[in-house]
Amino acid sequence: MKIGILTSGGDCPGLNAVIRGIVLKGDKVYEHTFLGIRDGYRGLVEDDIFTLPRKQVRGLSKQGGTILGTSRTGPYGEGNGGAERVREVMDKHEMDGFIAIGGEGTLTVARMLHEEGVPVIGVPKTIDNDLSATDVTFGFETAVAIATESIDRLRTTAESHHRCMVVEVMGRDAGWIALNAGIASGAHAILIPEVPVTIEQVTGWVQATVNRGRAPVVVAAEGFRLAGEDVSAKHGVDHMGRPRFGGIAEQLTPIIEERTGIETRSMTLGHLQRGGVPTSYDRVLATRFGTAAIDAVHRKEWGTMVALKGTDIVSVELAEATSEIKSVPRERWDEAAILFG
Amino acid sequence: MKIGILTSGGDCPGLNAVIRGIVLKGDKVYEHTFLGIRDGYRGLVEDDIFTLPRKQVRGLSKQGGTILGTSRTGPYGEGNGGAERVREVMDKHEMDGFIAIGGEGTLTVARMLHEEGVPVIGVPKTIDNDLSATDVTFGFETAVAIATESIDRLRTTAESHHRCMVVEVMGRDAGWIALNAGIASGAHAILIPEVPVTIEQVTGWVQATVNRGRAPVVVAAEGFRLAGEDVSAKHGVDHMGRPRFGGIAEQLTPIIEERTGIETRSMTLGHLQRGGVPTSYDRVLATRFGTAAIDAVHRKEWGTMVALKGTDIVSVELAEATSEIKSVPRERWDEAAILFG
Amino acid sequence: MKIGILTSGGDCPGLNAVIRGIVLKGDKVYEHTFLGIRDGYRGLVEDDIFTLPRKQVRGLSKQGGTILGTSRTGPYGEGNGGAERVREVMDKHEMDGFIAIGGEGTLTVARMLHEEGVPVIGVPKTIDNDLSATDVTFGFETAVAIATESIDRLRTTAESHHRCMVVEVMGRDAGWIALNAGIASGAHAILIPEVPVTIEQVTGWVQATVNRGRAPVVVAAEGFRLAGEDVSAKHGVDHMGRPRFGGIAEQLTPIIEERTGIETRSMTLGHLQRGGVPTSYDRVLATRFGTAAIDAVHRKEWGTMVALKGTDIVSVELAEATSEIKSVPRERWDEAAILFG
Amino acid sequence: MKIGILTSGGDCPGLNAVIRGIVLKGDKVYEHTFLGIRDGYRGLVEDDIFTLPRKQVRGLSKQGGTILGTSRTGPYGEGNGGAERVREVMDKHEMDGFIAIGGEGTLTVARMLHEEGVPVIGVPKTIDNDLSATDVTFGFETAVAIATESIDRLRTTAESHHRCMVVEVMGRDAGWIALNAGIASGAHAILIPEVPVTIEQVTGWVQATVNRGRAPVVVAAEGFRLAGEDVSAKHGVDHMGRPRFGGIAEQLTPIIEERTGIETRSMTLGHLQRGGVPTSYDRVLATRFGTAAIDAVHRKEWGTMVALKGTDIVSVELAEATSEIKSVPRERWDEAAILFG
Repeated sequence: MKIGILTSGGDCPGLNAVIRGIVLKGDKVYEHTFLGIRDGYRGLVEDDIFTLPRKQVRGLSKQGGTILGTSRTGPYGEGNGGAERVREVMDKHEMDGFIAIGGEGTLTVARMLHEEGVPVIGVPKTIDNDLSATDVTFGFETAVAIATESIDRLRTTAESHHRCMVVEVMGRDAGWIALNAGIASGAHAILIPEVPVTIEQVTGWVQATVNRGRAPVVVAAEGFRLAGEDVSAKHGVDHMGRPRFGGIAEQLTPIIEERTGIETRSMTLGHLQRGGVPTSYDRVLATRFGTAAIDAVHRKEWGTMVALKGTDIVSVELAEATSEIKSVPRERWDEAAILFG
Repeated sequence: MKIGILTSGGDCPGLNAVIRGIVLKGDKVYEHTFLGIRDGYRGLVEDDIFTLPRKQVRGLSKQGGTILGTSRTGPYGEGNGGAERVREVMDKHEMDGFIAIGGEGTLTVARMLHEEGVPVIGVPKTIDNDLSATDVTFGFETAVAIATESIDRLRTTAESHHRCMVVEVMGRDAGWIALNAGIASGAHAILIPEVPVTIEQVTGWVQATVNRGRAPVVVAAEGFRLAGEDVSAKHGVDHMGRPRFGGIAEQLTPIIEERTGIETRSMTLGHLQRGGVPTSYDRVLATRFGTAAIDAVHRKEWGTMVALKGTDIVSVELAEATSEIKSVPRERWDEAAILFG
Repeated sequence: MKIGILTSGGDCPGLNAVIRGIVLKGDKVYEHTFLGIRDGYRGLVEDDIFTLPRKQVRGLSKQGGTILGTSRTGPYGEGNGGAERVREVMDKHEMDGFIAIGGEGTLTVARMLHEEGVPVIGVPKTIDNDLSATDVTFGFETAVAIATESIDRLRTTAESHHRCMVVEVMGRDAGWIALNAGIASGAHAILIPEVPVTIEQVTGWVQATVNRGRAPVVVAAEGFRLAGEDVSAKHGVDHMGRPRFGGIAEQLTPIIEERTGIETRSMTLGHLQRGGVPTSYDRVLATRFGTAAIDAVHRKEWGTMVALKGTDIVSVELAEATSEIKSVPRERWDEAAILFG
Repeated sequence: MKIGILTSGGDCPGLNAVIRGIVLKGDKVYEHTFLGIRDGYRGLVEDDIFTLPRKQVRGLSKQGGTILGTSRTGPYGEGNGGAERVREVMDKHEMDGFIAIGGEGTLTVARMLHEEGVPVIGVPKTIDNDLSATDVTFGFETAVAIATESIDRLRTTAESHHRCMVVEVMGRDAGWIALNAGIASGAHAILIPEVPVTIEQVTGWVQATVNRGRAPVVVAAEGFRLAGEDVSAKHGVDHMGRPRFGGIAEQLTPIIEERTGIETRSMTLGHLQRGGVPTSYDRVLATRFGTAAIDAVHRKEWGTMVALKGTDIVSVELAEATSEIKSVPRERWDEAAILFG
């Protein structure tokens, strides 16, 4: 068979390891050949496709990013031609099917294409760990590791200056990175989108930490919002009506400082969390996802996605995979909250 | 309640995070007080015990090693007094029970003590990941991360000199570290105790790698033995009858060099794999084990052990936990072997 | 003798290693005793002083931050009492002299106190490497290492998304961190306060990089300003008259994007660069500074500062040390600029 | 001009950064073209030479090892043809001169070739830092960083088990790596080839450390030998007359254990110290060496070598560069020895 591979959505450590796993096993065991699709679905729509021989995936397991490039373009976008255009390009290249490595959006498109008869297999990618059909995905542990190491560094400076430090990590809808990096670094408060918390609770934890003679570290997921607080009212909007402060860390910092009297600084880790060398955990998981995906191709399990359940790689329906996001359960946050303050 | 804590057996990154998790939750939620037992069961036998206040566990989540010390002494050793002596010392300190953090040996002793009526809860610790009752334990991912980073380094030098490099990692009975570090670093052969492999297979992978213009990397678990080969016959024994070469890597190196003609070097990672700062993954898992262990104490689930199943922390019987070692299943090795050569 | 130690100004990796070097050598060789002065000059002014025995500096060489705390308070501040108050507090504690570890401001105050007869020795600390009297100071190499590692990470994501990335590093008056981190990470443009550069030059380098098929990385010191450009005019000010965007990276990003049409993102590394474990280079330099400082105390070389010249630690007059900042020479930037674009 | 480049001798982090610096500046500023010479002088002798375009050095600053390969073959070896053969191969490729990146042996050969009229420029490479003509070379700081990080890890386990740990680092003739890694990691004894030390001194430091309640860490350079001790007499030789134990760490371990009664373990870091990603310090120094070397070529300063003096890159005669090794001065060791025990 001749199989296409694309990576789509935000960058994520481990994408290259998935690609390498697919190509090495496909080449050696099934004698498939491979086509690289450039920049996600854009390459399928615009016919930007190249042959991907085994030797081009050499040494990729430890390399961050994706050699295929990525974008947020989709085949169902205005004038992009939908499944018909995808089939047309696939036929032109005699592509028997393709593997789509991406997050919720990417996999939803894959499901829709599959429903229109396009042969596709999914590999879940979400640095936020918010896909419900898999226990965990590659990239997430690397993001937690980077966030933890960063918070370890920021904390020493906070201690030297007797300051409070507010660190913003990724997590628009789910607070997994904040939860795990917060536990790992011994944070004094962890703020996530799933759990409503008031400013009084936050300043309570901050003050309790100061009272014990320590410098408070607050870890906030980007999607967290203070319960019952209109921050834009407090901080104003600019002449375009946009809130004056971008991120949640920047919003919280002056409020904490004002209410507690403790000098407070913020840091937003941003893109640092999604680049660079993946951890060994993510390299192993990504490699396993890759080899399992080509097994699924071989078994023609179109419309499915590989997933981790416990210690096993399994296949699940794409439809199931994209139905709901995986939030942090309240009891997991409660478990961590014991350590606050 | 007044609860003792001991750490026993080989050092392991995350021990301190477990201790911190136990004490913080025990102090804040249950108002327990804690006693540190020095150097594992030795402290129980020799009455080497001290109070362990909350402030002494401050900042421990990221600190390697164990503030309690460790040893391989056991209460059932010659003249150590067994359960009776343990109860005597516990009574003296009004200790209501204790938490034993350790591997197969430690937990077997805990089970035996429990069967004689001593109130004890276990926390599994095995850097080799060979305990069957838990999906994974803390310390293992750190060991894999260190091994992977080391192999990444060793490979560049092997490439510069066009050499074969044989790297020995931990794993006496189970090859998990070799398997995962080998996959993560893109090794050309992974040799584990569970899978018999001949010298011809090894040199075949080495030669195939050289033929593709690359420097072969062989990762061997310390417990691996060549199938059908009497290495001591080949390499001789010293005047004490001990094999001349200590480890498997040192044994394989001259054989590979002689049979393939490729210059070959070895490196044994040894103690490097069990010390230092734990990865964020291990800090989170160790913290969760610690807080779950004190929950189990609170529920008086004596004779049980905390364990990870999927993404959940559960309680299992100590008896179940120590019944068999968790080997690498043949299919997991086969999956990796696709990438060899 | 009884010697005080204080750390003052911004946090810097290696402060603790200096303190340890002073105390270990002073204790073992000269039998001095030590007093810790809390939070820089604030402790001298407010009499916040404690005994600092040898065992308290144990294990400090690798610990970031300062166990003494730091602040920006000075004895010559309004109502702080100046040299008279300092002498009063020193006399109360029978302090024979003190060692001030800090940057340009701290050392200027030390010089002024010395001129009024206070016995003081300086240890230079500047993460920006902008003190002219020493070849380099501790903390700087750690900052460069963190910035380099961060840029390595950010670059992979920029490549995956075909974006330009603008990274802001520390350096208000001198561009040393930008220069070295930029060279180390292979940046396509390095912007420093010392060298005027126009927006046309910046976009020229960015475009040249894109033309070669790569994702451009621009490293900018926080003190850099575009030549002949009024950025606040372009981006406007808020209702308080402050420029709408804080840092130089945020200012440059929309301009680059608009002029080149290349999607552009920014990241400000901020406090990440001054916390956490120091590199081995900085631990060695800081330890040598510490032991040399106590030698200088022993020789009663009050009014001097330790410094690195080539591979030697020497003593220089505080007056000399604080006379001018050490800028990046134009030829060093030209040397790096060869690699741009 | 058409310029050859070769890397020779043991692997060293930063070699690729030198190559990149040479090619980028040579291509952009001087419009030179480049030839890669494979595996050091072997490529010159055996005519194994290829064109090296700019795009092949892309991204090399952070990559360990050398894309040119290395070997220990020399043109003056039996039957290799000496300067005549070198000139013959250079003429065939119209090579106007070449840059030799290597250590004492490599540069001595370069000097001899130069004396016979071959146009050559040297770049010093010595991971041991033992070349007297340069303050420091690339690779050394990376080796110290790896050794320090490893010792940090080993120490935690030594503390957990109350053991003494003996760590062997590189340094056959000069103890620079041991000195700096020992200082950086807070070792309790540093043993180097330059300073004779008796077993009584070693065990004295070990015992003093134990008496203070800590786990002793002894760092030994591979070239260290105990004063007045015939270790092979003590430990015997095998049937071939070779000493039974390979390295100094393995020799010291049983002696320390026997004399002090303290459980003692050893670790030899070996090849770990010379592979992998260079530190930012080494990337900057290597890049500067590379661009300075092509400047020297442009100025036709044949027979010279680039070197670091203070913060400047200078040119020195090859003859001067290879006259004596740079030992650790006694006062530098004395300075460190203050911290022992």
